[in-house]
Amino acid sequence: MIIDGLQCGYFTREVFEELKKGDVGAVTNTLGFWESAVESLDAIGQWRELERANSDVFAIARTATDIETIIASGRVAVLLGFQNATLLDSRIGFVELFADLGVRVIQLTYNNQNDLGASCYEAHDSGLARFGREVINEMNRVGIVVDCSHVGNKTTLDAIKHSKKPVAITHANADSLFPHKRNKTDDVLHALRDNGGVIGCAAYRNITGDHYCSTVDNWCDMVKRTVEIAGIDHVGIGTDRSHGFTDRDRDWMRKGRWTRGVDYGAGSAARPGKVPPPDWFTNVRDLAKITDGLKRAGFSQAESDKITHGNWLRLYRDVFGA
Amino acid sequence: MIIDGLQCGYFTREVFEELKKGDVGAVTNTLGFWESAVESLDAIGQWRELERANSDVFAIARTATDIETIIASGRVAVLLGFQNATLLDSRIGFVELFADLGVRVIQLTYNNQNDLGASCYEAHDSGLARFGREVINEMNRVGIVVDCSHVGNKTTLDAIKHSKKPVAITHANADSLFPHKRNKTDDVLHALRDNGGVIGCAAYRNITGDHYCSTVDNWCDMVKRTVEIAGIDHVGIGTDRSHGFTDRDRDWMRKGRWTRGVDYGAGSAARPGKVPPPDWFTNVRDLAKITDGLKRAGFSQAESDKITHGNWLRLYRDVFGA
Repeated sequence: MIIDGLQCGYFTREVFEELKKGDVGAVTNTLGFWESAVESLDAIGQWRELERANSDVFAIARTATDIETIIASGRVAVLLGFQNATLLDSRIGFVELFADLGVRVIQLTYNNQNDLGASCYEAHDSGLARFGREVINEMNRVGIVVDCSHVGNKTTLDAIKHSKKPVAITHANADSLFPHKRNKTDDVLHALRDNGGVIGCAAYRNITGDHYCSTVDNWCDMVKRTVEIAGIDHVGIGTDRSHGFTDRDRDWMRKGRWTRGVDYGAGSAARPGKVPPPDWFTNVRDLAKITDGLKRAGFSQAESDKITHGNWLRLYRDVFGA
Repeated sequence: MIIDGLQCGYFTREVFEELKKGDVGAVTNTLGFWESAVESLDAIGQWRELERANSDVFAIARTATDIETIIASGRVAVLLGFQNATLLDSRIGFVELFADLGVRVIQLTYNNQNDLGASCYEAHDSGLARFGREVINEMNRVGIVVDCSHVGNKTTLDAIKHSKKPVAITHANADSLFPHKRNKTDDVLHALRDNGGVIGCAAYRNITGDHYCSTVDNWCDMVKRTVEIAGIDHVGIGTDRSHGFTDRDRDWMRKGRWTRGVDYGAGSAARPGKVPPPDWFTNVRDLAKITDGLKRAGFSQAESDKITHGNWLRLYRDVFGA
């Protein structure tokens, strides 16, 4: 069984049926990239409508026990996540209110610096800012996962140091295996390990590279090398898979409302647009291949269980509480 | 023990201590008059801060059982209320989200027509509008009291007819006892009775009149006459008391952002500003006098209990559920 630390895009009934076939028991979705508080409430409202209309195939989870109960009922558990802190509208009080509404994962920054800290794409990273410290304290208190995936390395290191709960890097890879601004240096992964955190290995071509995308065995080899850096208790899966995204959605993700110019996100001038998924991962169903891949990579059943779901479940239990 | 269906203004530790001395066990406060969704979230956040800092003197209640438990612990129970539907930002989905955050009373309109219906101050009242019907359905479903205090008579009658749960008029008087746009005609009070609803008799001079403000016995006589119209099971208390309001607050209540002109609210050109509280009710503590006043007016203990708290508790239990 697989817990996917991050997906995004348009979730439909069909997506959940495919996730089931891919042995995915739980997934953190993305409700926002640049959205304000009101727009984020809208997104939560839409997810509740989706849940009401499809309560036989998925349910929104608020605790680790919820996740297990939902999976046991044959449905997919969804954690409500945001890839930016813009939903807070700079209010510390909104952390608790959004937690009450079911939000369980917030990435401190998306691609741009904000009032919490710096993103991985900023030329300079001053580290965790004043509001960022307050927000992490509050996320720790109310039980929201601190996600540092798109966050700059200095801000990430500060966040890991500041957080009293394990921190997540829900969807990124090791920079020493595939160099990319979005990926994490070994010192960050060591700090994450010492904090009890988890990194979700990504399967997005721009930050994974063609080699690890070519076969499931190559990708599982990347996971194995990541385990060698971060430790067997600190590596999970976070595919960064999107559902039904169009160029218009990609433009929104990359440009939001912040630029009239061009921004390539994790892409580049040479690779500006949509990139193909890994060759072994053309459909969400293919995620079921990972378990055998990890076995062939030499992991025991117990080790494989940690990577596919156990490490995320432990982190969720630590962060969400009872 | 008294349950007050509506107060507003700046609640402080001192106010709660005075409420206790006034034998007030529960009160619905006012978190907004014209505020948007984000501003309303701010208000909820501020009330949570107030609660954290004063958890020994009051607590926010979400159910009728909460109210009883909080009172039994020697504290004041607070229901979070809004005097307008502007917090919804015209989104049906926000009704459920605000209910999740603890909102338990929403007045359909404040002093102006909105997308739900007409206020008592509009020259024409077309009745409950399309969005108003949707919002009442949703309030019934999620357990929020439909409040028609400032609402126009036709919209109020439509709301009472449309609502599957008892409706409240939290703070108004009988128009046949003191004629005022804010007060309710006998046909409205009869419809309210037939719906199982409750009207909270007000103690705000502009809508109560000098006669009923002069002594507690006169005011209790007004309550008795209201019972003769609406029935013993449908009359409660809703003082409309404000705490610490200044002229600036009064301007906001009356003018919001909707006019550059003059608006007197429940006042008039002859009585434009702050009016004195009833002579018998200069301090919140004076509310403790009501119980004896009702006895002198001829009510039995059982009848008095219904008026001072039992009718509100029954309505809350009906609306909020378990």
